[in-house]
Amino acid sequence: MAPNGNRIVVYKGPGQVAVETVDYPKLEVPQDVASSKGMTRKADHAVILRNVSTNICGSDQHMVRGRTTAPVGQTLGHEITGEVIEKGSDVQFLEVGDICSVPFNIACGRCRNCREGATGVCLNVNPARAGSAYGYVDMGGWLGGQAEYVMVPFADFNLLKFPDRDQALEKIRDLTMLSDIFPTGYHGCYTAGVTTGSTVYIAGAGPVGLAAAHSAQLLGAAVVIVGDLNKERLQQARSFGCETVDVSENTPLDEQIRGVLGVNEVDCAVDAVGFEASAHGGGGEAPATVLNSVMTVTRAGGRLGIPGLYVTGDPGAPDEDAKEGTLKVRLGLGWAKSHAFVTGQCPVLKYNRGLMMSILHDKAQIAKAVNATVISLDDAPRGYQEFDKGAAKKYVIDPNGMIPAA
Amino acid sequence: MAPNGNRIVVYKGPGQVAVETVDYPKLEVPQDVASSKGMTRKADHAVILRNVSTNICGSDQHMVRGRTTAPVGQTLGHEITGEVIEKGSDVQFLEVGDICSVPFNIACGRCRNCREGATGVCLNVNPARAGSAYGYVDMGGWLGGQAEYVMVPFADFNLLKFPDRDQALEKIRDLTMLSDIFPTGYHGCYTAGVTTGSTVYIAGAGPVGLAAAHSAQLLGAAVVIVGDLNKERLQQARSFGCETVDVSENTPLDEQIRGVLGVNEVDCAVDAVGFEASAHGGGGEAPATVLNSVMTVTRAGGRLGIPGLYVTGDPGAPDEDAKEGTLKVRLGLGWAKSHAFVTGQCPVLKYNRGLMMSILHDKAQIAKAVNATVISLDDAPRGYQEFDKGAAKKYVIDPNGMIPAA
Amino acid sequence: MAPNGNRIVVYKGPGQVAVETVDYPKLEVPQDVASSKGMTRKADHAVILRNVSTNICGSDQHMVRGRTTAPVGQTLGHEITGEVIEKGSDVQFLEVGDICSVPFNIACGRCRNCREGATGVCLNVNPARAGSAYGYVDMGGWLGGQAEYVMVPFADFNLLKFPDRDQALEKIRDLTMLSDIFPTGYHGCYTAGVTTGSTVYIAGAGPVGLAAAHSAQLLGAAVVIVGDLNKERLQQARSFGCETVDVSENTPLDEQIRGVLGVNEVDCAVDAVGFEASAHGGGGEAPATVLNSVMTVTRAGGRLGIPGLYVTGDPGAPDEDAKEGTLKVRLGLGWAKSHAFVTGQCPVLKYNRGLMMSILHDKAQIAKAVNATVISLDDAPRGYQEFDKGAAKKYVIDPNGMIPAA
Amino acid sequence: MAPNGNRIVVYKGPGQVAVETVDYPKLEVPQDVASSKGMTRKADHAVILRNVSTNICGSDQHMVRGRTTAPVGQTLGHEITGEVIEKGSDVQFLEVGDICSVPFNIACGRCRNCREGATGVCLNVNPARAGSAYGYVDMGGWLGGQAEYVMVPFADFNLLKFPDRDQALEKIRDLTMLSDIFPTGYHGCYTAGVTTGSTVYIAGAGPVGLAAAHSAQLLGAAVVIVGDLNKERLQQARSFGCETVDVSENTPLDEQIRGVLGVNEVDCAVDAVGFEASAHGGGGEAPATVLNSVMTVTRAGGRLGIPGLYVTGDPGAPDEDAKEGTLKVRLGLGWAKSHAFVTGQCPVLKYNRGLMMSILHDKAQIAKAVNATVISLDDAPRGYQEFDKGAAKKYVIDPNGMIPAA
Repeated sequence: MAPNGNRIVVYKGPGQVAVETVDYPKLEVPQDVASSKGMTRKADHAVILRNVSTNICGSDQHMVRGRTTAPVGQTLGHEITGEVIEKGSDVQFLEVGDICSVPFNIACGRCRNCREGATGVCLNVNPARAGSAYGYVDMGGWLGGQAEYVMVPFADFNLLKFPDRDQALEKIRDLTMLSDIFPTGYHGCYTAGVTTGSTVYIAGAGPVGLAAAHSAQLLGAAVVIVGDLNKERLQQARSFGCETVDVSENTPLDEQIRGVLGVNEVDCAVDAVGFEASAHGGGGEAPATVLNSVMTVTRAGGRLGIPGLYVTGDPGAPDEDAKEGTLKVRLGLGWAKSHAFVTGQCPVLKYNRGLMMSILHDKAQIAKAVNATVISLDDAPRGYQEFDKGAAKKYVIDPNGMIPAA
Repeated sequence: MAPNGNRIVVYKGPGQVAVETVDYPKLEVPQDVASSKGMTRKADHAVILRNVSTNICGSDQHMVRGRTTAPVGQTLGHEITGEVIEKGSDVQFLEVGDICSVPFNIACGRCRNCREGATGVCLNVNPARAGSAYGYVDMGGWLGGQAEYVMVPFADFNLLKFPDRDQALEKIRDLTMLSDIFPTGYHGCYTAGVTTGSTVYIAGAGPVGLAAAHSAQLLGAAVVIVGDLNKERLQQARSFGCETVDVSENTPLDEQIRGVLGVNEVDCAVDAVGFEASAHGGGGEAPATVLNSVMTVTRAGGRLGIPGLYVTGDPGAPDEDAKEGTLKVRLGLGWAKSHAFVTGQCPVLKYNRGLMMSILHDKAQIAKAVNATVISLDDAPRGYQEFDKGAAKKYVIDPNGMIPAA
Repeated sequence: MAPNGNRIVVYKGPGQVAVETVDYPKLEVPQDVASSKGMTRKADHAVILRNVSTNICGSDQHMVRGRTTAPVGQTLGHEITGEVIEKGSDVQFLEVGDICSVPFNIACGRCRNCREGATGVCLNVNPARAGSAYGYVDMGGWLGGQAEYVMVPFADFNLLKFPDRDQALEKIRDLTMLSDIFPTGYHGCYTAGVTTGSTVYIAGAGPVGLAAAHSAQLLGAAVVIVGDLNKERLQQARSFGCETVDVSENTPLDEQIRGVLGVNEVDCAVDAVGFEASAHGGGGEAPATVLNSVMTVTRAGGRLGIPGLYVTGDPGAPDEDAKEGTLKVRLGLGWAKSHAFVTGQCPVLKYNRGLMMSILHDKAQIAKAVNATVISLDDAPRGYQEFDKGAAKKYVIDPNGMIPAA
Repeated sequence: MAPNGNRIVVYKGPGQVAVETVDYPKLEVPQDVASSKGMTRKADHAVILRNVSTNICGSDQHMVRGRTTAPVGQTLGHEITGEVIEKGSDVQFLEVGDICSVPFNIACGRCRNCREGATGVCLNVNPARAGSAYGYVDMGGWLGGQAEYVMVPFADFNLLKFPDRDQALEKIRDLTMLSDIFPTGYHGCYTAGVTTGSTVYIAGAGPVGLAAAHSAQLLGAAVVIVGDLNKERLQQARSFGCETVDVSENTPLDEQIRGVLGVNEVDCAVDAVGFEASAHGGGGEAPATVLNSVMTVTRAGGRLGIPGLYVTGDPGAPDEDAKEGTLKVRLGLGWAKSHAFVTGQCPVLKYNRGLMMSILHDKAQIAKAVNATVISLDDAPRGYQEFDKGAAKKYVIDPNGMIPAA
């Protein structure tokens, strides 16, 4: 018998979230998506998951800070790991009881982009544009995953099944990062060209930056330098072998890098901050600061991975241009250095299987790198608050009490 | 109301095919596939197509020549273009009436390999090994497509829909090649590294070789040289701008190439012949001749695309090793030249959309290159015979009288 | 006996060039380069060329318009084809009499970047930054090539020898484009991902834009759309099979593209304009207009090739930011579409050999595409003027009377 | 004042090497190379090195075992690290005193292949074919490097300079592996597609196999399985974290792999054995055994890196075909699995810089992985003997007493 309801984290206005009860999910796609894309609402391709873990993400904070047009009542959460408890008639390769990681990108697996592996820009899941996610504003109305249960469409395609249930629960603090930040950080490094022997600069020591830093290590970087202005987060980066630079200091970034490497440029760089960047050396928000500084310290011929979020609409931006996502970019500098820039949502499916293998065989310690911290669903509001204040922690919600003690 | 039956080409013993009537297809996967892979037989993901065109392929001939273990009664045909006339409940992005190209590789779109674009080695459609096709021995028992109707599983993933019905019918002689030989020939060239300005050798002037030759032109080759011992097929190659060499002559291949290019090596080469190769200069079957000669004429550092079929079991082979698919390969030569070899079935979905665009915008003239020749379903046995004798034609069966006059 | 002097095009102040006589070149690298990089001035690796052809380039115009810090007296020209007439003791693979194409990028062939093929950002030829060119301000002081003679360093590495002297002279109007614009246009398309069946938008119908458009054809594009506000140049684009859109019109670009394709986005786009862009629909210079409009019309997941020049210093820019090469880029839009951006000088050596083969085997007609127009060295000032006014011509200077009549 | 002579390891007949004194090297290329390629003998591009370390390689053993046409008197050695003590007039970027790694491939840095990074098949250094090496039969007569001194041509291009002399000497046991086996093993893994999370099978636990195994770790493999029939070498593989399988056992390889992984296939495989392979399970030499077994255990769609040497002529081979380098390859099996095969000499320059960085920053411990063992030049004959008997050691010769105690 299906549960009566579904307890879920909901946006309640700037700075506020609450845990509320909504209907237990159905095997149905949102009405807007179905009608705009010519799909049936009935989703024979979908499953219902009992969520084992679901993390709070920095991009959730954009909504909670009131930097988007998210309405009060918006359900939240797109970093989900869960157990299949119900499946549609066309789910062929998953069984009830399987524990699976859910890529945050919702993808149909059937359009041109999905066929090419570009699941971050699926053409069939969002009436507004290419690409979608669970629990996000202007993404077609898919239910959030910071909840007891969630519906996952096109489940055979989207879900990554863990090979063993007990092993999965034992390593859940690591595996839970496969839904978003671990692949996202890895994507930043991969698109920046990080490989054996690279020197790498990671801008930002939030969870995505730390995940990028650990990914750079897995990709074989010789030196990984992480920059931030939050001293606690820099300490976290040092805890797993990274070098750090404090961008709140007055010493220019390239000189700080010279202090580490002996030269003032790195081979590859990752912008793991995005549009809510603060000015280096203090002085408030400065949306293009990170990107421009990253160009300065990347060698000619180098590449920049930009997983940090830049948006098309930012009602809270400091100026009219930034409100439309138009930033002052030192394009001349990048061009003179023949830089390549790779932007956009990480296509999680491209990377999550390999990263899972790294976790299962003890090559990756992502939970330790990002300081995974388990909280209950009821504690989600506190998690949001602490994270917003800059805690060097990655909050993992345990909505069904399934996560074993560490 | 569904039709009563389905007229289809069937293997009747070495050298013989006939058109027989079988049951109208159902939205079901073969029992063996379902049980071995844990699928439901009921295929909500499938469609039934009324076939607009379906071609005879050289690899059908392997069965018909008795070179495989195909039983009498094996249905034939894997080069299919058709109109959707019925669809399962989970077919979301196709409508009845759509005209679509069917990749010969059957693929689930949901396994690790399909997600990576390797649809030629799908893990879920063949109990015996990775990869499958319609109407082929030891491939799981999928119905052949040289028929009035065919069932296509995982249809949203597999089918390439043509944008306009009238345009599709008008260009059907070209578009029908998208199901196999055009992508297969292109794959050979692509994996051989053909690009702007390349000199290219194509071994074999059968339909795949001619498709490879035209693909090399589309990829920008400076010179395309086609080799065969069938003079009519060489004439066909010259008809669209290729150079040719006659490998039945005693002049060594590399010297013939020097006669064309001034040097005795090409940049890239494609083996479009496979295991049923004849010895150069005459003298019977010589399974590794083509591959070895292709190494001889490819420059150091070059790559070889090998779309020509090599099999794991060949009951009719000239010796015990060849019967198991073990051939005498000049590996030392290839190694000394740092060659890379790319083998296997073409993953059609990787290429068919781009090639379709080339056809629709009049950049590709593949029907002319392979000498597309339309015949009725009843004439299929004659088509098989003529093709086996080396006719420089690609036979296109018109099972429902839908192909307009040229 | 060496000639007495060397007649050469020289910058004489905004809007003015003249042909003057300077010393005949020596086998020496510029003093600044030698001392900053630890090289000997004596250049055993260099050759002197008698120039067969040397073209006027849009980037020369940046200097001549006074948009750079080029001093009066700056020698000009970096698009050079010539005959070896003298060579240093360590030139091993070239002979006096060889006719060769000179990549505009000066490269040592020995540094980390050159070894990786990134000859556009060679580390050893420019004291100021990575990368250099002949006859350009702030590039280390290498002599210009719009002259009777030029010195080419690291000649074995840099020069592309044509296989046959007579053939080279016969096809010189095409081959002369190998020094810069043909590879540059091709690089734009290649980095934008143009391949078989692509739909492509080329922003700009100047010589680089036209070369990009022809390159897109060679790469197999299904449709090539060229945009400009110069009607004569658009007519030139149509002359070899491109579609065109007039960006001086009020209809938004994406709607014009829909008029051509039926959809308002292309697969790939190339910015062949750069920082001196004019506002679409009129209204003066608007440095980021082209880049932003190109994002608008490129599909999600697409790539943008940006061979158009963006500079780090532009004294004549309309505002303080642009003077430093900081432009208002719609980064949020690009990010939402997961665009990748590839900027910088084309590494000519990566492409010129293949493009040469395409020319020699009559696959490419680049002279026709860009409307190659031969003038004498004395007529260079007139060529600069007409080109600056928007003539749909590519001016090819014939400094030694070696170019045969067409 | 130049030294009087040069003590060097010389082949003296099957099973025998000796240390003899030859002339001190000159800045000259071999006469055969110069005359066949049109070069000057005088090599302004060359340097003389005082060798710091020079290793014994398995491919030296092919000569010493009498498996080649090497004449008595052939000088040996191609794994060289040395100090510049003399340089030609066109060596611009190296100074006397620099300590450098010498890639075993001799490359001109100026031909088509070198420009493309394919330094293993340089067109200008060997009259007989593409590609060359120091101290090897039929390679153009370049002096061996198991000596006090060696001449390196095209030195600016070929040499990798270490950033700091003291650091270089301190880490010389690791850095000495950059001349061949570390890049060669890495190339095997790289071309096999090893990446984050891969399962990898390495055939062969000799020095190249062990280097490949450590490279797989650096590339992020989840599990590395090494196979050999030498128990001491398998123990060495286990010493740094590899799994092992003993191919002398009767259990089929795929079953042994299942014992490790739970499945009987790996993602990627490397053949680090080559043509002198022994039959699995005992029974003498069987040249294609390794390659065929590697296909069996590699998943469909996987890639095989083949750095193990296969030769075009093997006078000591067990049969006529093998004497010409023609082996019985299960091509049908590879084709059915869509395998790609990458063969040939490793282009060391493509990888050595990154691997150097990994060593200098303590990410790679290659000396430990291959059990680097320093011996004197006089002890070289003993090193050859022990290595031939299967010692799990990599012998590093210290010809000038420059290697510090461990």
